[in-house]
Amino acid sequence: MAIQMKLNWTESMQFVARSENGPAIVIDSKDGGSGPTPMELLLAGIAGCTGIDIVLILQKKRLELNKLEINISGKQAGKYPKRFTDIHIEYFLAGKNIPFKAVEQAIKLSEEKYCSALASFNAKFSHSYRIENKEQIKPLP
Amino acid sequence: MAIQMKLNWTESMQFVARSENGPAIVIDSKDGGSGPTPMELLLAGIAGCTGIDIVLILQKKRLELNKLEINISGKQAGKYPKRFTDIHIEYFLAGKNIPFKAVEQAIKLSEEKYCSALASFNAKFSHSYRIENKEQIKPLP
Repeated sequence: MAIQMKLNWTESMQFVARSENGPAIVIDSKDGGSGPTPMELLLAGIAGCTGIDIVLILQKKRLELNKLEINISGKQAGKYPKRFTDIHIEYFLAGKNIPFKAVEQAIKLSEEKYCSALASFNAKFSHSYRIENKEQIKPLP
Repeated sequence: MAIQMKLNWTESMQFVARSENGPAIVIDSKDGGSGPTPMELLLAGIAGCTGIDIVLILQKKRLELNKLEINISGKQAGKYPKRFTDIHIEYFLAGKNIPFKAVEQAIKLSEEKYCSALASFNAKFSHSYRIENKEQIKPLP
């Protein structure tokens, strides 16, 4: 099972990336600014992967999740190639009576068992989470 | 030096990712299809990173690059968490009298020295490249 992406250079540091017939995204340098940078894409991939896991696991537990926000930050080594050495993931959840234990289990399952993106990195991972248990946010239809 | 991304869950398996005031991208599951999947984003990040390196290095060598296409594919382990085990990067370049040696050096410098994305993974990397030396493609303005 292989996943593929094709990138085409456009101009300056800008590339367009696409998977087969999937939607395309623009990648750029920080200075160019027309799309996320390559290193930002890596963080988005990790957070998206664990985010999808969290949604699926909480849905399986029949919990009503109304909001999931993930803030991910990656520290890079000081020297080239400046790989990500430490990645911190912060989960912020809101929903109806979501117990801490369920969230802890979901994060643990994702980070230790299911998340392919996270397991592909050589960085040290850490996380934190917050739950807003009051129903301040309108549920999705 | 830390890089940050913020993701917001919208519905189903769809997330919107954004870095500070940068442009946003949509992430989705393969079934959802509204944006690249998390694992596709990882590959796009790696290819974008090494792609930017190649462009910069060849420009420093005062070579006229007219086209750079990168095909990247990642094999995943059969068992969960199904991390990327083998990643192959295929470079296709076109330009005016671009020597093989310059391309080889650029790829080597990127993969071994500069590319932060590539150095952040625990997969095995391999690459291949092709050069179209005839000026079939219109140069960028």
